[in-house]
Amino acid sequence: MRRSVLVVLVFLASVVLLGTTSEEPSPLMGYSVEQARAERNWEGKFRDIPKQDNLRDYMKRLSARPHHVGSPYDKDNAEWILSKFKEWGLNAHIENFDVLFPTPKERVVELLEPTKFVAKLQEPVVPVDPTSGQQSEQLPTYNAYSIDGDVTAPLVYVNYGVPDDYEKLDRLGVLVKGAIVIARYGESWRGIKPKVAAEHGAVGCIIYSDPRDDGYFEGEVFPQGAWRPKDGVQRGSVMDMPTYPGDPLTPGVGATPDAKRLALKDVKTLTKIPVLPISYGDAQPLLAALKGPVAPKEWRGALANTYHLGPGPAKVHLKVQSNWDTKRLYDVIVKIPGSTYPNEWIVRGNHHDAWVNGAQDPVSGAVALMEEARTFGELLKQGWKPKRTIIYCAWDGEEPGLLGSTEWAEAHADELRQHAVAYINTDANGRGYLFALGSHTLEKFANGVARDIEDPEKKITLWKRRQLKNIADAKTPEDRQEIRQRADLRIAALGSGSDYTAFLDHLGVASLNLGFGDEDGGGIYHSIYDDFYWYTHFSDTDFSYGRALAQTSGTAVMRLADADLLPYDFTDFADTIHKYLDELQKLLKDKQDKIREQNKEIEEGVFTATADPKEKSVPPPREDVPPFLAFAPLQNAADALARSAEHYQKALDKVTKNGGLALSGVSLKAVNAQLLQSERKLTSPDGLPGRPWFRHMIYAPGFYTGYGVKTIPGVREAIEQKKWKEAEEQIVRVAGVLQDEAALIESAAEDMEKAQP
Amino acid sequence: MRRSVLVVLVFLASVVLLGTTSEEPSPLMGYSVEQARAERNWEGKFRDIPKQDNLRDYMKRLSARPHHVGSPYDKDNAEWILSKFKEWGLNAHIENFDVLFPTPKERVVELLEPTKFVAKLQEPVVPVDPTSGQQSEQLPTYNAYSIDGDVTAPLVYVNYGVPDDYEKLDRLGVLVKGAIVIARYGESWRGIKPKVAAEHGAVGCIIYSDPRDDGYFEGEVFPQGAWRPKDGVQRGSVMDMPTYPGDPLTPGVGATPDAKRLALKDVKTLTKIPVLPISYGDAQPLLAALKGPVAPKEWRGALANTYHLGPGPAKVHLKVQSNWDTKRLYDVIVKIPGSTYPNEWIVRGNHHDAWVNGAQDPVSGAVALMEEARTFGELLKQGWKPKRTIIYCAWDGEEPGLLGSTEWAEAHADELRQHAVAYINTDANGRGYLFALGSHTLEKFANGVARDIEDPEKKITLWKRRQLKNIADAKTPEDRQEIRQRADLRIAALGSGSDYTAFLDHLGVASLNLGFGDEDGGGIYHSIYDDFYWYTHFSDTDFSYGRALAQTSGTAVMRLADADLLPYDFTDFADTIHKYLDELQKLLKDKQDKIREQNKEIEEGVFTATADPKEKSVPPPREDVPPFLAFAPLQNAADALARSAEHYQKALDKVTKNGGLALSGVSLKAVNAQLLQSERKLTSPDGLPGRPWFRHMIYAPGFYTGYGVKTIPGVREAIEQKKWKEAEEQIVRVAGVLQDEAALIESAAEDMEKAQP
Repeated sequence: MRRSVLVVLVFLASVVLLGTTSEEPSPLMGYSVEQARAERNWEGKFRDIPKQDNLRDYMKRLSARPHHVGSPYDKDNAEWILSKFKEWGLNAHIENFDVLFPTPKERVVELLEPTKFVAKLQEPVVPVDPTSGQQSEQLPTYNAYSIDGDVTAPLVYVNYGVPDDYEKLDRLGVLVKGAIVIARYGESWRGIKPKVAAEHGAVGCIIYSDPRDDGYFEGEVFPQGAWRPKDGVQRGSVMDMPTYPGDPLTPGVGATPDAKRLALKDVKTLTKIPVLPISYGDAQPLLAALKGPVAPKEWRGALANTYHLGPGPAKVHLKVQSNWDTKRLYDVIVKIPGSTYPNEWIVRGNHHDAWVNGAQDPVSGAVALMEEARTFGELLKQGWKPKRTIIYCAWDGEEPGLLGSTEWAEAHADELRQHAVAYINTDANGRGYLFALGSHTLEKFANGVARDIEDPEKKITLWKRRQLKNIADAKTPEDRQEIRQRADLRIAALGSGSDYTAFLDHLGVASLNLGFGDEDGGGIYHSIYDDFYWYTHFSDTDFSYGRALAQTSGTAVMRLADADLLPYDFTDFADTIHKYLDELQKLLKDKQDKIREQNKEIEEGVFTATADPKEKSVPPPREDVPPFLAFAPLQNAADALARSAEHYQKALDKVTKNGGLALSGVSLKAVNAQLLQSERKLTSPDGLPGRPWFRHMIYAPGFYTGYGVKTIPGVREAIEQKKWKEAEEQIVRVAGVLQDEAALIESAAEDMEKAQP
Repeated sequence: MRRSVLVVLVFLASVVLLGTTSEEPSPLMGYSVEQARAERNWEGKFRDIPKQDNLRDYMKRLSARPHHVGSPYDKDNAEWILSKFKEWGLNAHIENFDVLFPTPKERVVELLEPTKFVAKLQEPVVPVDPTSGQQSEQLPTYNAYSIDGDVTAPLVYVNYGVPDDYEKLDRLGVLVKGAIVIARYGESWRGIKPKVAAEHGAVGCIIYSDPRDDGYFEGEVFPQGAWRPKDGVQRGSVMDMPTYPGDPLTPGVGATPDAKRLALKDVKTLTKIPVLPISYGDAQPLLAALKGPVAPKEWRGALANTYHLGPGPAKVHLKVQSNWDTKRLYDVIVKIPGSTYPNEWIVRGNHHDAWVNGAQDPVSGAVALMEEARTFGELLKQGWKPKRTIIYCAWDGEEPGLLGSTEWAEAHADELRQHAVAYINTDANGRGYLFALGSHTLEKFANGVARDIEDPEKKITLWKRRQLKNIADAKTPEDRQEIRQRADLRIAALGSGSDYTAFLDHLGVASLNLGFGDEDGGGIYHSIYDDFYWYTHFSDTDFSYGRALAQTSGTAVMRLADADLLPYDFTDFADTIHKYLDELQKLLKDKQDKIREQNKEIEEGVFTATADPKEKSVPPPREDVPPFLAFAPLQNAADALARSAEHYQKALDKVTKNGGLALSGVSLKAVNAQLLQSERKLTSPDGLPGRPWFRHMIYAPGFYTGYGVKTIPGVREAIEQKKWKEAEEQIVRVAGVLQDEAALIESAAEDMEKAQP
């Protein structure tokens, strides 16, 4: 569901040479020499099975009709997926949840002054595109979980509508209080835009797709090219997911029939003001009618008019009314029981619901998941037995608010906390480079998987191609040096935007999100044009990257499921924590320097002297320079973590012979039992300040970014929001969590040492 | 003539406090205490006289009709200016030159395939703008000194058409050989575009104004706003001025009736391929008809279509035929003889010719020059007698190729080399901040002038406002620190684009170019809309900055004319030379690092791995890493220069009493005689490699930038063009020139020491 994740993995480099000259395959983390050989054999079989034609066939079927939550074809797809799983010999069932899902009853955007214009709010049929005409089944263009409202007010253009944009508006003397804001899609997750607008007193919010960002500025538009046509609209949820995702009525618990539900009026995750998304065809007359200051250069899009800020003279009428219905979700769940450690679970998911036909989002990922399941069905028939339990999940209701995965994770929270080893997520897939984001305890593991799979276009490993891409994209010689010399490519941390959220952020299950992209592009996201015709003309047209995704995710699942020792690694994790700590200190210092400089410039008269008397401008207010913060507890904790990681690695080295693990039986089980809790230790039952659902102390989506991650979020957001006391409290809290983590790793290391032969 | 000089002065900061608490005015460089008091008194009178209403009246008259070279109103204006000078009691005359000036006979731009479109090449009348309808007198839209030609070829979009753009095209596999290129205005001086296009084998060149750069992207278009309307066209010269400016037929000598003239076929400064400028209204159908790769992101303009590179399928017919006539120039020259040093000349100029009505370019500057002349007429009547001779020049023919100033400077070359102290230039003027560019021997002097004049909007000194603006614009804390702490704000070096070129670059006369800008903006440059209506609605509408310009330039002229000791300063100059030397060394190192890295990436396979198989791309070729160059001669010369500057300053301090100069009579005359040659010493009679007309070894317009300066150009361009042997030769040559300069300064210092009382 999340827009092409170009934040990416930032996978860095390695001097580790693959055992290319030896006959022996290179070692596998957590495997004995013998087990590694067997595993590599099975993995080889696994990777031979997925077929591009199957992926195409599944996509054609799943995206044949609109299949949003509550639609007939959503249920139909779930039942079809279930039937396929069963056909492949897998133990599958559907789990249902009943969730709040508003759908539009009335939508109006109209310009009343200085001229009249009524937005059409309708994506036209494209004759060459056979599914674009299924208008009776398509959800109208809207933003789910906007409150109902009917407002008329002057318009203000707010760029992407993120907090910095409002600061800039303040400097330009433009007030949004009482106005309807028009923000362009991009930069933040869309739900941030009405949230911040409401905080600044706006009474309504229109979000449009500027052609600068995914229309003709980027390339030819659909159907001549891949990009958003004039009347294409991005639907999407505006639920306040950084507070909590999932069913708004049942925070923290599964939306089962007997769950206690909030009254609608008590729900905190609806928007405070009405919101509608529009196309650039509809936006152009509104923007062209604005006067007032010309927008700052970086704010201007690609429409052929001067971008002004307003307010007015454009006066707009915005009306949204929804049906506030409960809809049924259909999560399709497969369970392949583990032979040795049935109580250790590897969970793998991709959603199946879409905003409309959703060939790319989510079907391109869902078909890989299905093909993995078919492949596991084959291997089981051939005698393969995973040591751990594997759970495959085709989620429903991701688009409106990660509903299916969140409700399932909440419903099964206790079991998952006890049993879950990892959650592997995919979503929309494309063509290009592997991206892998996730828990840094899995960074080394993810690098290992990427080293074993071939890129279909270049016939080099996914790892190598990503390394070379990172070198090409690196901004500084220092970055390039790290990419070339670090053993593992860095993986980026997870924010939100897909189904890993409840697993990682709420339950503390180590997670990875995998996919391919960066060579395809396009502007059909959440529109009726995200369909089979578009995908097979402009994206991974031969499904070779769909196959690569099935190979990658499947290999990851299999390798986790079969390992003797859980393949978490703590050195990369400790290294990453040190990096975050450096970032936090730099964030504070930059803020101090900036405010010190700004105060100096206020005193010098810089702002007065550079204000054009023919334009309005407001100098920034004098601010107190941020205090120094006591980072010591976090520094000590990061050091303790590094020491324990080193200890663990040494202990592991001692029980490693010829590159293979020489540890078994009871000792292994004891160590695994501790490791299984290692990501859980990074959570805190009270959660983050102001949003207790988010319990992970290292990763969270930003409260003002939505998609974008905030690492060590308690501290980072407190600094960003200038809450100095809270920042110091959170430093202590995160330090405690990391000390506990260090103690767990230390204890696992000691157990391993005791167990040496 | 040069487009809004936003390169600017980069004037930096000072801790020098004005003598605000003392009754004594602060000292004046090169003045005794007594003379300084008298000078300040006269300067105060000078600055009170200029009247905004006069400036408005002159502008109305001068811009009332089109007045390009050879037009009736060009001559009429010259004669009117002459009559005004005479009316003000000044000794004035007109000097004529006869120069080659082609005007269009036939112009065609048409799209032949895949659809038909004929460019209209005509700027429409704007009803509210009274002079826009003078079509019978307007020069058609064209680029002067394009060769005649008639070509039909596929079109290629080349961005700004500078050398780097062609390197990028090479990487994208797009060839321009045999094609007509379409380049947008901007980045380089326009004449560079056909020059570089021809070097790459293009057969024709179209230059258009993209709305991204001076159209609706920047602001509302004329007549609603200041910016270029859809059919507005930028005329302009494409003569190869970086080879030599001035009359193409008489390089190096004045175009007097008896001058030896080249045959047209032997002229080196015409373009090699035909060129025409067009509006974005005319460009849009051509650009929209291109296919092929999508242009790189930074190449895309603001037209509402996808920018492709081609070649084709757009096929274009381009035809240019000119009348290759000789036209008469009318330079209006005023001479105010000096009372003490009649053989030391201060020259002050601004052109009067325009492309069409030219209210901004050049009339906004020319009216300041006229008002200065009137003011001097007044002061002469009041008894003021300048010590040195002042020469005021209203140049003709600047637009086509700096014709009037160049021919005059060439005709009077010997006298100017003997007598010229400084040349002070202005051109188009606007609203905002003072910019001062020029010789660094005048940096301290220019700072002194800026400290004494008030900004009309802010009522602080021009210097202070510029300093605060520089602080606001600074990119790094180090830059801000320098701006705050350096005694003088840095002035930027002069490239080309106005009438200082022959004085500074050919004759070695220390020059300054002054003006105001940065608060006004607009897109009427070289169009019929650059007229009184536009200027009085969108630029310095009350002429308060016109008055400030007259005050600034007039003060500079007066202060140079009246000084006891010529107010050159060599410490700022030596500091600047050190800075340039550091830049050159960094330039080489960056090139080495870049090529080393690129070679490494070629070996690693970065380019192969990151090439999208669905798009064409060509990896860069392996290159030899640039050798280390022997910078020592230049380092030694820069050090010698710094030592001599310090010595001179010490000697000067010794003859300074109470902040005033205590030196007079014969000794002063001897020192001045040496100082007068100090900028001449920076020239070399053989000129720059491949362009002997350019004799200044420290400043020149770049061979591939046109406007943009290249400092220490012999060395810098050799490094840029990878001519390593030439670079080392030029290092030795420039070192020799700087050693000679150091010796001259040393000798002046010694003379001053000998002269102490």
